[in-house]
Order: sequence, then C-alpha cells, then structure tokens
Amino acid sequence: MAVGLGPLPTLHPVPGFELGIASAGIKRPGRKDVVVMRCAEGSSVAGVFTLNAFCAAPVILSKQRVQGTVRYLLTNTGNANAGTGAPGLAAAERTCAKLAELAGVPAESVLPFSTGVIGEPLPVEKIEGALQAALDNLSENNWAEAATGIMTTDTLPKGASRQFQHDGVTVTVTGISKGAGMIRPNMATMLGYIATDAKVAPKVLKDLMLDGANKSFNRITIDGDTSTNDCCMLIATGKADLPEVTEASGALFEALKKAVFEVCMEVAQAIVRDGEGATKFVTVQVNGGGNHQECLDVGYAVAHSPLIKTALFASDPNWGRILAAVGRAGVPELDVSLIDVYLDSVCIASKGGRSPSYTEAQGSAVMAQEEITIRIELGRGQCSETIWTTDLSHEYVKINAEYRT
Amino acid sequence: MAVGLGPLPTLHPVPGFELGIASAGIKRPGRKDVVVMRCAEGSSVAGVFTLNAFCAAPVILSKQRVQGTVRYLLTNTGNANAGTGAPGLAAAERTCAKLAELAGVPAESVLPFSTGVIGEPLPVEKIEGALQAALDNLSENNWAEAATGIMTTDTLPKGASRQFQHDGVTVTVTGISKGAGMIRPNMATMLGYIATDAKVAPKVLKDLMLDGANKSFNRITIDGDTSTNDCCMLIATGKADLPEVTEASGALFEALKKAVFEVCMEVAQAIVRDGEGATKFVTVQVNGGGNHQECLDVGYAVAHSPLIKTALFASDPNWGRILAAVGRAGVPELDVSLIDVYLDSVCIASKGGRSPSYTEAQGSAVMAQEEITIRIELGRGQCSETIWTTDLSHEYVKINAEYRT
Repeated sequence: MAVGLGPLPTLHPVPGFELGIASAGIKRPGRKDVVVMRCAEGSSVAGVFTLNAFCAAPVILSKQRVQGTVRYLLTNTGNANAGTGAPGLAAAERTCAKLAELAGVPAESVLPFSTGVIGEPLPVEKIEGALQAALDNLSENNWAEAATGIMTTDTLPKGASRQFQHDGVTVTVTGISKGAGMIRPNMATMLGYIATDAKVAPKVLKDLMLDGANKSFNRITIDGDTSTNDCCMLIATGKADLPEVTEASGALFEALKKAVFEVCMEVAQAIVRDGEGATKFVTVQVNGGGNHQECLDVGYAVAHSPLIKTALFASDPNWGRILAAVGRAGVPELDVSLIDVYLDSVCIASKGGRSPSYTEAQGSAVMAQEEITIRIELGRGQCSETIWTTDLSHEYVKINAEYRT
Repeated sequence: MAVGLGPLPTLHPVPGFELGIASAGIKRPGRKDVVVMRCAEGSSVAGVFTLNAFCAAPVILSKQRVQGTVRYLLTNTGNANAGTGAPGLAAAERTCAKLAELAGVPAESVLPFSTGVIGEPLPVEKIEGALQAALDNLSENNWAEAATGIMTTDTLPKGASRQFQHDGVTVTVTGISKGAGMIRPNMATMLGYIATDAKVAPKVLKDLMLDGANKSFNRITIDGDTSTNDCCMLIATGKADLPEVTEASGALFEALKKAVFEVCMEVAQAIVRDGEGATKFVTVQVNGGGNHQECLDVGYAVAHSPLIKTALFASDPNWGRILAAVGRAGVPELDVSLIDVYLDSVCIASKGGRSPSYTEAQGSAVMAQEEITIRIELGRGQCSETIWTTDLSHEYVKINAEYRT
C-alpha cells in the first residue's frame, strides 16, 4: 500500500563502500537477513542514534565504537536484540568479533545494527554462520540488494542517490533506509546508511549527519513510537579525488550538503510512504510559530491524533478534528482567533472558525488525494516546521496485531 | 463491545435535581438528543472544563456562568458547537435564552453543553423546538433516561450512584457520563453530571470536583485526543436535612467525598470500558517514580502507544513494546536496569531485561483476559499514578473513519 513509492531509483555505487548480503534464516529460512558493509580504510563515519532509554544492545555498542575507527557495519533483521540486557550486549559483541576475525580487523572496528522483534535472544550462531557468505558477496554494486536485505515490515526497498560535479570530479551520495512502524525518530532514525566518496573531516561529517537527520528522519512519524534501535550512519570514504572537506563552508561543502540532505529526505520520506498500512502521505506544515518547539508541538499533535489519522484514511475533511488537535497541543496563551488552517490551497478554517468561503466539496476533493498537505498558520511569529506522516488504516491495526504470529 | 460494562445500576434520585429529555431530531429524527436538568433554588454548582484552546462555545459560556447562580443545564448531542466562532457563541446564548424564557429564570442561570460533530452550525431552531417538551418531562426519576439522552458514539449509558447515612439522614450522590472517543481529559472530562442532595459551600464543592476529576476523569485516555467540549458538573442541591459542609474536613465531608469519588471513578471508567472499539480494559499503574509527572509521562507513553494498543487487541504479550514506550517517555536519566514490568502478577521484565522466570505462556494467559493491569516499577522514588485505557482495534478505525457518514 506504499503511497507514491515506486521501484528503487538508480543507486550509484560509492567508491570505497561495499555491501554484502546473506541469509542467516533468523525469522524464515532462506530470507536475506544479514547485510555486511565495508568502509575503505581511511573512511570517516558519523552516526545518530535513538534517544530511547531502552536502546538496544547494538546501539550501545555502535555509539561507543563510532568514536573510533570504523571498518564494517553488520546488520541483521528479524531480531532487534533490545530489552535483552547484559546477554544481549555479549551477543552483539560476539557477532562483531566473529566478523572481525573473518575479515582480519579489530573487533572494535565492527558496528552492529539489529532490527526486528524486541526482547528475544539474538540467534548468534545463525548470524555467525552467514558472515562468510556476506563477506564473499561484498561489492560496490549491491546497494539495491542491501536495501532489500534490511527490510522488515517494509513492503518496498528504499534508496536514493545523487551525483554532482566539483572541479571536474564526480561525487556520489547514495543511501538506503528501512522502517515502516515504530517510527518517531528522536535525534536518530530507523536504520539508514548513507555513503559518499567525498573526503570529509569527522567533525564536519558529524554535524552534517545531525543536521541532515534533524531535517528529515527526525521529522517523520508514523505511530509516535520512538524505536529502541534507530540509527543512521553517514560514511565518507574519501575515494573521490578532491581535497578533504574540513570546514562547514565552501562550494564543495555546500554541494555535498545539498546532496546528503536530498538523499536523507528522500529515504526518510520513503519510510513514511511505506508506513504500516499507509494509504496517504501527509505533510503537516506549521507556520507563524513564536518558536520552533511550539511549531513541532502543534505538528506532532496533528500528526499523532488517531482521530485525524482515521479521518485521513476515510478521506473525510473533518477539519474540526484538526482544530481540536491544535487546541490541545499545549501552546501557551494560544489565540485561536489568529489561526488559519489549509488543506493544500483550500482554506478550511480562518480566524479560528470555519472559513466563510469553505465548502465541503473543496475539502473532499483534497482529502481524496493520496498526498495531502495540512498547513496551519499560527499567526504568532516567524518560525516554521514541517512533519511528514501517514493515515491510520485497518491495515495498520492488522499488521501490528499480527506482527509476531 | 463494551468491556465489563453491564446495564445501568440503580440510579437513586437526588432530591432537588430533576432531568427532562426530549427529541430535537438534530442528527436523526426521533432520537432523544436534548436533556434539560433543573437544580433547585439554593443549589451550589461546580464545574471543570476542557483546557483545549479551541474550546467550544458552550464551554466558554458555561465557564463564565458557573461563577453565578445556576438553575438549568441544557445539553444537546449531535452537534458540538465547536470551531464555530462568534456565531456559535450567539447560537448557544439563544438556546439558553429560550429555555430561560420558558422557565422564567434569568438567561445567565442556564448553562449550555453540546457534544457531537465539531464545526457545524448549531441547529438552534430544532433545539428551541424541543425545550418545552424537555421541561414538561422534568422529574427526579429520569437519571437513566438522561444517561441515554446524552450518548453519542457510546454503546451503553453510563451511571453510578451511592448513598450513605449521616446522623440518621440518607445522602445520595448520583452521576452520569458520556463519551467514547476523543477522550483524554485535561483538568476536565467528557460530559459528566454528578448531583448530591448534601448542602455544600461553593468553595468546598469546587475543590471536591477538581480533586475528584483529577483522580478519575483526568486519568482516563482512549485515543489521546483532548476534546473541545469536555465538562463535568457537580451539583449540590442542599435538600438533605443536614448542616452545610463548609470545610474540607469532618465526618460528613469525608463520607461525601468518598461517595463523590466513587461515583466519579465508576462513570469515568465506564467511559473507558465503552471506549470506541474497545475489547480490553487496561489499567496502567506506574510506581516508584521520583515525582508524579514522570509517572504520568510513563503511563501516558504506554497508554497512547499504538503498538502496545494493537498488541493488547491481539492478546499478544509483546512486552518489548512496553519497554520501548517506557524508554521513550522522556524521563530524565532513566536507569533502565532498575525497571520491572508486570502483567497482572506476572513479572515480564526485571532489571530492564526479560525476566528470567518469564514464560510466553504466562504472558499469553494474562493478555487473553478482558481486564489487564500493566504495572511498571521505576525504582526511582515513592510516587505512583494510575491511568485507565483501552486497546486499539479494527473497530476503532471503522468507527472513526465512518463517524460523519
């Protein structure tokens, strides 16, 4: 039921970044569920991670290890290795150590990532058994296979790619992501991997990752549940024949930033488009806020309201539910008489009440679309925020009521 | 699909408080949709109201008028008169003025209450046309009919009643409520009306209403959406032959408080039991918090998680989703290694991980029940909070996707 999400676009290989896929049979025999990624020596790697206090064992390890030299990323699906305590941490360490041994690198240079059911012991032997096959499969041309290999309840693989020229040299930025439920990243994301062959100093790369995630992954929400396992990694292999980007300024930095942000945005929005049971892709735009936080508060109140989400599913222009959500968002001293609300370009509420020009037919026409923008003008200041979300359908309930069976 | 909610219990009449029901045909011809309540002269009346900034016109009026002398409460269903701006306020005033004229009281002594669709103009003439019939129907014995008359998407009427003896005099407390969706009261409630024949000073009555609502109506949530129209009224007619309660102490006050709280709790929980599409009645108990707010933050994170709610619907002991919700509740410096989680008496997680003694069979047995307590021990302090909620079912989506059609 993915909304406006087609087959994968062309995912350009990134020199110095290889991907290998294998099957450990974690959830189902034969399913591709292990992905190994190799970063060329000298790569810079930055990451953002979930803020969930119950973050998973692999997140704990990866957060530590990303501070040092990173050579391999090891991802498994089918099991999140979260809520597993000390044994879970030991299990994550074991799989990394095994990969390090096979690849001849220090164990600390392998970062683990897991996604799937929370609270079940990680099947270490199964994963270990698949590692050699994944290593043998390593290739710069495997982005599409890896995008499929990291899927869980996703119905489609997600990826994006950009190239730009700088001083006659082609620079590539390619990324993939996964995630369809338990999506409300908080300074982090679902699993996302973005690589470039530009050479970027670690500090600059880290800021680029944070900034990019904040404008994309951290602005999408499907069900308001921040995962225990969210991670997004940005890898710069330095294989492009260009000087290192050491400052957050200059033409190369700006071109790279644009490409990274576009890839982040495309794969982040792809997660929403493939949201569990999604039949609508909804942009919630809040303008005229006194500060960014109140824009976000209003945006999330709207994006998380089950009443609005079910109305979106029903293509019902029940704009009263939107006003109600804005009103309960907790914005201090909110003057409702200044508020206008639009569905795309149709003004449904002005000055806090039903717009005099509004007709039900106008609202119904917009709501019948697959892609809808709800725009809220608060009339309090100059700040804006945009959030992307889905509707709430029968299929969402079905998927989540039956996930483990 | 109401969970553990049977036919109305006996609702004892409250001397000095009469109820009259009539049909204005607001949504459907013949439906009982107007309820008039008359408070005897000399009654004290207290109310709590929604904190939604987009509060409805009748809420604005009632909040003002409850400060003065209250003689009549006028309730209509089928139309919330919310998001209707200045015309909505005028419409509410007109219906009150008409009732005041027919009853021979000042217009300011009539308080309006509306519930139903947001954003449609109030059908003033229809309501006015039903007022004489409602007045003619006034009787102290009409609680059950009124409980039915205020229903919207409710599947069953909701009411509770208590009597106690003080100095040989019988004191009665009777209440009714309505509400099944858009339930997350915030210092207020769905529509609720509780009356007693005790004589209570206005200040004491107001505190009693606030305190009672905070422990009951303000601790229930179905979908996290705070309504624009929530109101709960407490009326003390003073017809019982006892001295006025002028202080929040003493045997009479304590007995009255107990009865009022029990009635509040019973009708508040009845709203959850009749929650839209509810198949489970879920108690979320958070103990060991450092303060009350963090207990509430954890409780609501669990109670609002669509992933937990769908797992409850599926009777799936997916306890990992509970840990994930606790972890994202935003409690500062949460030490997950101190956290225990129970389903009823079954310890599913201890010290932040899966409990060694836990078996899936134990969890499944609890989840198969209609009534489930999720208990979370934070291990941070002595504070506790309890919240009541429902699961998220196919029926919830169906009801809210089709509400206006």
